[in-house]
Order: sequence, then C-alpha cells, then structure tokens
Amino acid sequence: MTKIAVNLPAVPARSYEITIGRGILAAAASELADAGWARRWAVVTDANVAGLHLGTVLAALRRAGVSAESFVVPAGEAHKTLPAAADLAARLLEGAFDRTCGILALGGGVVGDFAAFVASIFMRGIPVVQMPTTLLAQVDASVGGKTGVDVPQAKNVLGTFWQPHAVFSDLALLDTLPVREWTSGCAEIVKYGVIAEPPLLDGARGLRQREPAVVADLVARSCRIKAAIVAADERDAGRRRVLNFGHTIGHAIEAESGYTILHGEAVAMGMVCAARLSHRRGHLAAVACTAVERALAEVGLATVIPPFLRADDLLQRVARDKKKAGDAVAFVLVTALGEPVIASDVTEAEIRAVLQDVTA
Amino acid sequence: MTKIAVNLPAVPARSYEITIGRGILAAAASELADAGWARRWAVVTDANVAGLHLGTVLAALRRAGVSAESFVVPAGEAHKTLPAAADLAARLLEGAFDRTCGILALGGGVVGDFAAFVASIFMRGIPVVQMPTTLLAQVDASVGGKTGVDVPQAKNVLGTFWQPHAVFSDLALLDTLPVREWTSGCAEIVKYGVIAEPPLLDGARGLRQREPAVVADLVARSCRIKAAIVAADERDAGRRRVLNFGHTIGHAIEAESGYTILHGEAVAMGMVCAARLSHRRGHLAAVACTAVERALAEVGLATVIPPFLRADDLLQRVARDKKKAGDAVAFVLVTALGEPVIASDVTEAEIRAVLQDVTA
Repeated sequence: MTKIAVNLPAVPARSYEITIGRGILAAAASELADAGWARRWAVVTDANVAGLHLGTVLAALRRAGVSAESFVVPAGEAHKTLPAAADLAARLLEGAFDRTCGILALGGGVVGDFAAFVASIFMRGIPVVQMPTTLLAQVDASVGGKTGVDVPQAKNVLGTFWQPHAVFSDLALLDTLPVREWTSGCAEIVKYGVIAEPPLLDGARGLRQREPAVVADLVARSCRIKAAIVAADERDAGRRRVLNFGHTIGHAIEAESGYTILHGEAVAMGMVCAARLSHRRGHLAAVACTAVERALAEVGLATVIPPFLRADDLLQRVARDKKKAGDAVAFVLVTALGEPVIASDVTEAEIRAVLQDVTA
Repeated sequence: MTKIAVNLPAVPARSYEITIGRGILAAAASELADAGWARRWAVVTDANVAGLHLGTVLAALRRAGVSAESFVVPAGEAHKTLPAAADLAARLLEGAFDRTCGILALGGGVVGDFAAFVASIFMRGIPVVQMPTTLLAQVDASVGGKTGVDVPQAKNVLGTFWQPHAVFSDLALLDTLPVREWTSGCAEIVKYGVIAEPPLLDGARGLRQREPAVVADLVARSCRIKAAIVAADERDAGRRRVLNFGHTIGHAIEAESGYTILHGEAVAMGMVCAARLSHRRGHLAAVACTAVERALAEVGLATVIPPFLRADDLLQRVARDKKKAGDAVAFVLVTALGEPVIASDVTEAEIRAVLQDVTA
C-alpha cells in the first residue's frame, strides 16, 4: 500500500492523500470511519460499476461501521449534465443528506467528475472521496480536484475545483476492466513518461500484461507526478497545462470520431502528433520521438489516425478549441523526453503537415 | 462615494471592494475598463431589471470602452435552477464567451445568486462583478460570496462560495424600487442594528422616507458589518451564523406563506420572535426588545405574524430546517442589542409560545 501526499500550498487545509494498493477496501473503509469527515456517506456510482463492485464496497464500509447509502446514476457521458446533477441533489435531499454528509465517488472518470461536481455544489460544498475503478481515473481523473459536467456543445465546460478529502485506488477493482479501457488508461501513463519521467516508458510491456508489480509501481509514480504538477498550479493557470500534452489534437480526434475513439486512444494519437511536431521543430531527437511511439505500441495503442478522420475537420476543431481558450494558445511540445514546453506559435500549416504524416 | 474593503484572510488574492454611492455607474465602468479582470463582460440581468436599467448600464460600459453583451434571463425565483444555469451557459458558449470573460450580475438577490453561481462553474470559474439593484441585495445578498440555485424541495440548496471581483452599489438604481421591496430590504438593515451596531436603529424613520444621506450612510454601514463578519468566517462555519438572526423562523414564515410574504417581511417577524425569545430567557431587557419592534415598525414592517399561518405548520418547518443542518441547531438570540449569541438548546415549547405571542 502506497500513500502519496497531495500538498496544496495555496490552501494547506485542503491537502490530502492518495492511497494505492491491491485489496485496500478494508483499509479505506476504516480510514473513513476514523477520519470523521462526514456523518453519512452517499456512494455515487453508475449502473455498470454497481453491478461489479458496489456490493463489495458497501460491505467493506459496513464492516468498518461507516454509515453509507448507494445512489446509482445512469452510466455514460450523456448523463454528465446539470439536469442530472439536479436529479442527484434531489435524491440526496429526499434521503435526508445534508452538509454533515459526504459523497464517495465509485467509478471511472465520468462518475468521478460528476459526483465530485455535485459534492462541490451540494449545500455549497460537502466532502468528496474518490474511489476510481478505471486505470484512467486512477492515474488521471481522480487526482487534481477538477470536477465537471457537459453541455450539449462541449465536454467539461461547467465545473469547479474541489479537492477530494482522499483518493483510494484499489488495483483489484481494475481486474474487471475490459482490454480497451485498460489500454486507453495506459496512454496517460505514457504521457507522464514523456512529459516528466522517461523511465516510465520502460514499463510499457509489463503494463500491457497487467503485471501486478509493474501496475502498482506505474500507477503510484503517475499519481506522484500529477500530484506534484497540481500542487504547483492547482487552478490550471500555468504549469498544469503541460498535462495537456497530446490533448489538443487528441480532443479533436475524440470529438470528431463521435467518441467512438476512447479518450486515451485519441490522446495516444495526439501524443504522436505532438512528438513529431516537436521533432519537426528541431526540439526532439528522432530517437526520442520513436521511443514515444514504441511505448504507445507496446501498451497496445494505435499510433496512427484512422483515415475516416479528415485533417480539415480535425484542424477546424483544434481552431475552435483554441478560440475557446482566448488568445493564448497552449500547445504542449517536448524539447526532450521529460522536458515539456508550452508553445503559443504553432501554425495551422504545421498541424496540417503532422496530421497528414500521422494519418494511416 | 464610499469604498469598503472585504478582506478574506484565508485567500488574500480574493479580497475585493464594495463601492457605494449615488450615480456611480461611470466610475464603475471605468474601474472595469482599467482592472483588466476580463476581456469581455456578459451583463446578466432579468426581464424586469432589463426594462429599467440595462440600457443605462450598457451605455456607461460602452462609454468606458468595456466590451459587454447582455443576457436577459426570466425573472423570479422559479428560474433560479440548474437547468436554467445550463441554458445560460449554452448561450454564453454560443456567444463565444470563454475563460477570459466575466459576468456582471445586474439585479436583485435572485439574479445575483444565479449569475454568480454560473460564473463560479463556467469553465470552472470566471470573474463575477455584482451590481445590485435592490436594497436587500445591496446590503446583504451581494456581499459575502454565497451563490445559489434552488431545487423544487428547497431554496439555495445548491451553490458555491465564489467571491466577486467587485460590488458596485449605485443608490440611484434604487429609485425605481417599489415600496414593498424597499421595506423588505430595510429588515436586513435593522438586523445589523440588532446584532452588531444598535445606533443603526435610529435611522429607521429616515430609511422609510428614503432620505438620501440616511440611505447612503446605512447601506455603507450595513455592508461594513457584513464584510467584517464574512471576513472572519467566509465559509459559514461559525461566526457568520449570527447573520441568521431572525431567519430560522423567518424562513419558515416565508416558505409557509408560499413566498407571498417577502424575505425581509418574514425576517422582520422572525426577528420579533427571536428578540422575544431572548427576552423570555432573561437575556434581553424589555426595553431593548421593544426598540427592535419599534425600529421595524418605523421602517414600515409588520411585527406580527398573520393569522393564516398556523404555529404548528411553522414549527414543523423549523424542525425540518433544523434536521437539514445536522444535529447542531443554530438559533441566534441576542443578550443585548449588538450582542448576538448562538443557542443550540431552544426547545419546541419555547418556539411555540413565542409564535403564539407574536401571531396577530
């Protein structure tokens, strides 16, 4: 069992720990029982996760003497909306939940974002504890305190910064994860290797085989990297933007595919583009660029953009995203493995060239 | 023109100023132009206020070179909901508003709560500036950073703490305020007199007459009192609860009347109850208790509960509110004028007795 401290210098009272390990549910439950953060807990989960893990989690909580009730929400991004948040809030009120209660988010990134958002606005904010059940959520979404819901026009446009009181990542919960979800999660681990800690890339094969020691090690190291970056820039004003490596083009691919390409799969393609763009600019050595693509391939991710996605459409999406962020465009490049840099002068021609280069 | 600093020791970067005066729109606009808090402003207002003040405000902003567009939302508490927040967010996106923009809330408490809530979650938080147009909003709702929306079961159950970048209270905007709205706002001023600064009560007659010097003085002193209390307890964990003087029974009266009794009118009746309860307990001298009721009468507020409201129903609502706040019941009493105290042992029998005493 590994514990990682997330220190938030701006508001030390909101610092917290991430606990990572296999079979840590009992330990998590007794920590909740002892901490006294809330009198009662609402375990928010979706219909899919409920069938797999809800019984086990509730049993662990009960054994530790934690008062908990479950609230199952419909699965999927389509239900990560403000009206759905209003529904959950109404159900919490009917269940007599109040400001002395907390929310335990049990699920992947969508459940985590949504449940933490509701926690952040219910009675103007109640504690939330994250219990991520996907690899992606364990290494990314559950860490950092970003919450969000979607509007029809775009994802995560509404949200808050609301740090959890704790994150419990039980690696045993990942055993039920389908291959494609697993592989998608690996993309973010490769990302940490590229932007912060190149040796992570050596674990790619073991990650694909789900070797327990490799998984435990890489999940912990990924969380440590994200925690350090978040600590330096909680509200995403500067340094934290390096976490978007591969995401500018990745988001465009994900959206343009109608979300048939998973987040991690799209980010992998985006990372290939960002690495090649870095190389074209003379920043990144060819061998390093190849190492990124090899690591992605080793975990089982595609490193080419499927031909049904047209460069023109992707470019248009990227341009729209840029506009959304105001005038300052943040395109993350790397000058070497582990050395990210924010470039604000990437041209449309450069992006077009690399998209054509990377498309199958 | 008076400026009052709201210092928030927890996060000094979020401290801000309240500017109060008659005809300060031009000054406010040029402050917005100079401050650089946002590239563009969305002026959010409701259909009623739009007809009265929107043109004037937009003209002032334009003269100062501030880029602003108006977003008119339906008037009334019924539209202070999460789905309405989603609608406004969608309109902001369509208007290409992004994280470099800000929201200017022009209106009463409902508009202020709602617009600030949307600002607090739009792109995970953009600046909000309050421009309150009712007396109640100028002395209460616009100060303190509480935002909120309603669910069908209860008011302000969902919300955030999101401090404005500035509050501009133009007293000239109050000239169009109907008598009943004016009188309702006076209740909160009397409250500040009772819980913090007894000399405020001497201004009651002048307040009713809307004497400009008295109004300017009392609005500023009220804001100063609230700012000091909020500074000491931004997140409502302790001291800030004294602001609820008169509100425990007041909320019950307001809700039980189906909101036909305005907030301030209900709080006035609640204050009479709380003062008499303080007197019955031997805390408050009879003369002080009378002074509270006299001040309320002088501003034009009823000091008795209308007979159509039954004590049993009010008691039930109070009990339900108590449950909502967990086990700790916060009933604010006064041991002398200006000396509030939180009592957690007020019994149902005491409340019933005082309700019967105060009902017409």
